[in-house]
Amino acid sequence: MISHPEALEKVLATITNFGTEKVALLESVNRILAEDIFADRDFPPFDRVTKDGIAVNSEALEKGKTSFKIEAVYAAGSPQGILNDPKNCVEIMTGAMLPKNCDSVIMYEDVEIEDGIARLQTEVNAKINIHRQGSDRQSGEEILSKNQRISAKEIGVLATVGKAEVLVKKLPKIAIISTGDELVDVAETPLPHQIRTSNTLSLFAALEKEKITPTLLHIRDEKEVMLQQVENAMNNHDVLLLSGGVSKGKFDYLPEILEELKVEKLFHRVLQRPGKPLWFGKQHEKNVTVFSFPGNPNSTFVNFHIYFKKWLAACLGNETSTSEVILKTDIANHPTITRYLLVKTKLENGQFQAELLNENGSGDLISLANADGVIVLPPEKDFKQGDVIEFVEF
Amino acid sequence: MISHPEALEKVLATITNFGTEKVALLESVNRILAEDIFADRDFPPFDRVTKDGIAVNSEALEKGKTSFKIEAVYAAGSPQGILNDPKNCVEIMTGAMLPKNCDSVIMYEDVEIEDGIARLQTEVNAKINIHRQGSDRQSGEEILSKNQRISAKEIGVLATVGKAEVLVKKLPKIAIISTGDELVDVAETPLPHQIRTSNTLSLFAALEKEKITPTLLHIRDEKEVMLQQVENAMNNHDVLLLSGGVSKGKFDYLPEILEELKVEKLFHRVLQRPGKPLWFGKQHEKNVTVFSFPGNPNSTFVNFHIYFKKWLAACLGNETSTSEVILKTDIANHPTITRYLLVKTKLENGQFQAELLNENGSGDLISLANADGVIVLPPEKDFKQGDVIEFVEF
Repeated sequence: MISHPEALEKVLATITNFGTEKVALLESVNRILAEDIFADRDFPPFDRVTKDGIAVNSEALEKGKTSFKIEAVYAAGSPQGILNDPKNCVEIMTGAMLPKNCDSVIMYEDVEIEDGIARLQTEVNAKINIHRQGSDRQSGEEILSKNQRISAKEIGVLATVGKAEVLVKKLPKIAIISTGDELVDVAETPLPHQIRTSNTLSLFAALEKEKITPTLLHIRDEKEVMLQQVENAMNNHDVLLLSGGVSKGKFDYLPEILEELKVEKLFHRVLQRPGKPLWFGKQHEKNVTVFSFPGNPNSTFVNFHIYFKKWLAACLGNETSTSEVILKTDIANHPTITRYLLVKTKLENGQFQAELLNENGSGDLISLANADGVIVLPPEKDFKQGDVIEFVEF
Repeated sequence: MISHPEALEKVLATITNFGTEKVALLESVNRILAEDIFADRDFPPFDRVTKDGIAVNSEALEKGKTSFKIEAVYAAGSPQGILNDPKNCVEIMTGAMLPKNCDSVIMYEDVEIEDGIARLQTEVNAKINIHRQGSDRQSGEEILSKNQRISAKEIGVLATVGKAEVLVKKLPKIAIISTGDELVDVAETPLPHQIRTSNTLSLFAALEKEKITPTLLHIRDEKEVMLQQVENAMNNHDVLLLSGGVSKGKFDYLPEILEELKVEKLFHRVLQRPGKPLWFGKQHEKNVTVFSFPGNPNSTFVNFHIYFKKWLAACLGNETSTSEVILKTDIANHPTITRYLLVKTKLENGQFQAELLNENGSGDLISLANADGVIVLPPEKDFKQGDVIEFVEF
């Protein structure tokens, strides 16, 4: 059996580039950007008025002038206006271009307007209320980088530079396959010895965050059927996420079947809990990556996050830094295995803390639902309250 | 002008219950649960075998028996088996019901099987490798609560108790409306005095997280057109999110129009930055809530999170606790206004820290894209490095 770090290394050694594709701007939310984005103009693209009011020439202000004849009114969206006589003013609105011969904007709150004359009501500063052309970014500067995730804020930036279509990383086609004759459909009433399927649905939901809509498949524990259906799934997908059928049971045909289908076994069984029977391999000819998780809900869900999500992020070039939490209790060492323990996290006085959940083994779905993620405890070491340790969020 | 806390109070005083609806299980991800969920059976529903191996009666083990004749093999998904002679054993697989007359499971790793006889290879414990019926939850216990958000983990729980359809909170119908003649479409090349639309697209993307697909609308700065289109939008939506047109500008018709459409103005202008011109009101007859944000990208995006998102969470019964961060720099007080400053957050040694971004005023879209959220600084107080203050995440 190999250790968790060795297993993770083997998983990350198989990453694949799925290429890129163009999608419409609003379809790109939560996708991974596949191009660097540059400013196509200065930001702002012109000296932009930031207050509604009047625009004047500061020389007039310096000479002590306090009343100004209004020459014109310019709205945002009008071509650039002009102040003909530097002793006068123009009315000007937020978002408009600063008119020619003007260098100062005085907001309406500071003037009184009567009979076409604006009179200052208070002392004002020159050269303010203008967002200067290019002061945020200059044309040609890089403003977003390849490999970052596109969120709502980035959508605004992409829109501003005219990206009606965005180049993003292509996502792998994924099949989630459950095995196990004890499983019945959610809508069915299980017999005493049966349970409803749940693992694959959790994984389906977890992939929604990644904008992946996987194929869902349940296969009976019958070798011939399994062989055929797994092969079929392999022909149409880049990744198989299997749940169940990799333990030492008599009807755990998967390792055999995967071998028959020429999936190179990169490891089977890891010194970890939950998820000791984890099976991982690659079909090189078809370039299909196979994660075969144990059938228990916690094992599957935790190992999906520990291995698959990191693999996917690496494939998409979007690795993020490891998250860490502060332990709230002591935990004694385990001599040989890496443990993933369910925790509830809390932010208290700026401290990100993890409280252990009382779990009841790897079948305990309810504790899983209460958890925010797992802490990763390597073997041998003792852990003390206050220690900062790796945290993997669900 | 009112203060930020007063404004927020007025916003939260208008919350509306949008009712509930049933959706298919996999459609419920990220929705807010509208029913308490109870265990329909014990969890696990039977004494569940957790290792592949043999099941025996512990009396035989206590008597020092180390070899067992195999009576039968039971897979997961078979009805409960039976051990006829307590001196014998049955082979049993993970996930199966513990057979009658058995109380111990010995994993394959600890036995050797030859000629229908299983022989212990090591000393073993009695009564292990069984996940006891009802040990996680008893039938009838509450396992998920109304008003919580449904994530991938909850999908597993809902599936397990047979919720093929889930009762969730209905979402409001939202129209996002931009005004401002300086705006052109993303696909267009703007003239020197124009800019591309971006605010409304950012809000559209931000609502995706909430599973809301809003209507997008741009209206010209022409009073009659505006009146008609806003009225139309009001007839078909529960919420209007307006961007632009509420400053003191000559062409800022919105406050007038909203009054004509009998929207009660609950406040206009708040002692805050960005977003001083924020306008908020309610059309009681049509039960439409109107958030009218200033046109600047940062003002709109920040105030959307400060006011609208809290309002939505309250409408759906899903208020969450306020998040907090540790300040990394001193910040001098402002005498009168509440400030929302863009920050980048970092988790370092379990400390959740906020670093101020060098922003360049409320039009600075690029700084916005680099921010993880804003810190909320009430007026009057000075802030010191190490202070823990409110953080609103984007």
